[in-house]
Amino acid sequence: MAGVTEELIGRLEALKMVCDKLAFPIALKHDTVSIKEAFGMRLAREVKSPEPFPSFSRSLRDGYAVRSADVIGASTSSPVFLRKCGTIPMGRLTDESLPKEGAMQIFTGGILPQNSDAVVMLEDTEESGPWIEIRKSVMPGENVILKGEEVKSGDIVGSPGELLDFRNVPAIAGLGVDRIDTVGLNIGILSTGDEIVDIGAQSVPPGCVRDVNSTMLQLMLKSYGYRSTFLGIVPDDLEMLEMAVKNALPENDVVILSGGSSVSSRDFCLEVMENLDAPGLIVRGVNMRPGKPTLIGGIKEKAKLIISLPGHPLSCAIVARVILVPLLDIMIGGMELYEKNFMPVKMKCLDDFIGTSGIEEYVPVILRTDGVLPVNSKSGYISALRGTAGLGMLPINTETLRKGEEIGVILW
Amino acid sequence: MAGVTEELIGRLEALKMVCDKLAFPIALKHDTVSIKEAFGMRLAREVKSPEPFPSFSRSLRDGYAVRSADVIGASTSSPVFLRKCGTIPMGRLTDESLPKEGAMQIFTGGILPQNSDAVVMLEDTEESGPWIEIRKSVMPGENVILKGEEVKSGDIVGSPGELLDFRNVPAIAGLGVDRIDTVGLNIGILSTGDEIVDIGAQSVPPGCVRDVNSTMLQLMLKSYGYRSTFLGIVPDDLEMLEMAVKNALPENDVVILSGGSSVSSRDFCLEVMENLDAPGLIVRGVNMRPGKPTLIGGIKEKAKLIISLPGHPLSCAIVARVILVPLLDIMIGGMELYEKNFMPVKMKCLDDFIGTSGIEEYVPVILRTDGVLPVNSKSGYISALRGTAGLGMLPINTETLRKGEEIGVILW
Repeated sequence: MAGVTEELIGRLEALKMVCDKLAFPIALKHDTVSIKEAFGMRLAREVKSPEPFPSFSRSLRDGYAVRSADVIGASTSSPVFLRKCGTIPMGRLTDESLPKEGAMQIFTGGILPQNSDAVVMLEDTEESGPWIEIRKSVMPGENVILKGEEVKSGDIVGSPGELLDFRNVPAIAGLGVDRIDTVGLNIGILSTGDEIVDIGAQSVPPGCVRDVNSTMLQLMLKSYGYRSTFLGIVPDDLEMLEMAVKNALPENDVVILSGGSSVSSRDFCLEVMENLDAPGLIVRGVNMRPGKPTLIGGIKEKAKLIISLPGHPLSCAIVARVILVPLLDIMIGGMELYEKNFMPVKMKCLDDFIGTSGIEEYVPVILRTDGVLPVNSKSGYISALRGTAGLGMLPINTETLRKGEEIGVILW
Repeated sequence: MAGVTEELIGRLEALKMVCDKLAFPIALKHDTVSIKEAFGMRLAREVKSPEPFPSFSRSLRDGYAVRSADVIGASTSSPVFLRKCGTIPMGRLTDESLPKEGAMQIFTGGILPQNSDAVVMLEDTEESGPWIEIRKSVMPGENVILKGEEVKSGDIVGSPGELLDFRNVPAIAGLGVDRIDTVGLNIGILSTGDEIVDIGAQSVPPGCVRDVNSTMLQLMLKSYGYRSTFLGIVPDDLEMLEMAVKNALPENDVVILSGGSSVSSRDFCLEVMENLDAPGLIVRGVNMRPGKPTLIGGIKEKAKLIISLPGHPLSCAIVARVILVPLLDIMIGGMELYEKNFMPVKMKCLDDFIGTSGIEEYVPVILRTDGVLPVNSKSGYISALRGTAGLGMLPINTETLRKGEEIGVILW
């Protein structure tokens, strides 16, 4: 352990070193899927819109399509009268053109007639016989959205590495894109440790614990757009671990070792990673708390990443969020994607965040309307993340942050 | 429209009125599912732990189990020597008891032997023949986690309405809970409007638009733990809409009308809701921007909620987040659950947020490390939420918030 401690490197330095030694980002494999099935996945490549949006100039209001030049100066005290020229039907093409000093009734979403450049809202008008009384002037473009105003054909509407969710999928689908390429990264999870039993075990033999970590990892990875497969539990045995990793490697781009928290378990992971093809073991412990025993390695030629996470459930979850997910982002999108997705947001400490200088520290936080509270817990706890909004980060040279000071928060 | 505008009520007032008139929360239907399948759903009832955690007193470190009383005052300059008494095996029960002035080697996760109350970390020890040199004193309980320390049998580890994700599912499963009850709310989505065509349409006839809203609603609801079914597109025809709602009601607890943005479309929704059994239409427009044309109603006896959302894609998404999701939360968990889940977080404005006094306003925001930027867009835009972190809220009596001032943000 003493030897390991001396080699600890900073978290960001570790990420950069792995990125460098494994030549991330890798040449991505992808799955082509229907946009309807893409929810929760990551985009593998840029998406360009095949169409402009809107595909025609539309009204944003119920009212009257007009020529703005015809209603200059219109007001309640000095209305302008225009001739009513029919109604724009919804959902059908009209090649009608608006005559000078005319007004056509239009509904929200209706096609703007030719020669019209604005819409006067219904509440600013009054119908009187063949005339429409206009009580408010409009600027050119007011209450309308012009063809291609939001999106032009060829505009980028999705970027590589982007998580597909309710914020971007509807637009991509709405622009007529029906199939997209999602990141086809395969991730295998091996739990290690003599004391680990399946999470579904009805009763747990004395001295054993259920495999909380592999479940947490699968669900967290899923939330961040990465699919993973649980490959089983391996006892604390070097040969068996070596065999399990060897079997996992052909099918998986990433192998995660999780669970074994004892020195022997960690030593076996270390040995397995040292015996890999170049570069093998890259990071032998990280200068962060929790997370010191994290090991990172890989095989450059085959574009494989292998990571051994701490066994304590809370430590495992924190390292998964601040090292594993970042590494996957770097693997698919380089340091650029990492920087986009890993952003500490400054929030006010509502209580002291106890820290030590010389090591980067992470504490789960509860969000309140005016700041964040630390969740004080031990690394062996399994429910410390319940109700939390993210992780407060105490940088390497920061000691305790006092109530009222600001802390950087990595939101989940 | 003028008539409607006069009846606008505030957003919170509207939520409370609906809660009151429909006697929310309703008696919940539930689905009993395996905890492994519960990811992304909402808990229907409290979960109590059947077991303590940990189920035995465990070491949190690799080192030596000791009696803390034996090592009082131990330090590098004045170490204490204890007799080595073997090693605790991992994953197996030992009923070994630690003799006085003895030390047993233990690994992280190992069962603490009887009569031992603390662990000295490996790096604070040195083996010398039959002796273990202890260079640091420990407090009772140091480096160990005691049986039941985190969770006692019967402790609540899940609350009704809680979203099941990577933060709580692993703990619930790890405590031996294998089946749980999830909220069995059925939500049907009807798109309305002559101009609306299926989102998967390859080409869109002139004057028509793809049905972006129903896709957005389904994906947003899924993110918040609610499943929904798309029931199709209904043209702007009162009878057809009435029939569609009538057909949807028996199967669905909630019917969402979405898409039709024209006055006639909205008028039909209004009429359908007015004709429902008591109380029928409850809210006829909300004093918020966007979102004014929102209609809310329901049938108390049958515990049904019906909501008509604005047709503009951005307006629809914003109302879905600040009215629809809150109403579903109130439906399953009352105002209490709403207040828990709807919390504006104060963040610094990195630019002006233009607002008007007299109306509650919502603006999508981009998160930066030191605050939020407004996304300026029109209500008809479809991609305005891409990359946003939530919605900035300008309360009813707030005009423009200037750069440097604080704004409440509802994070997604």
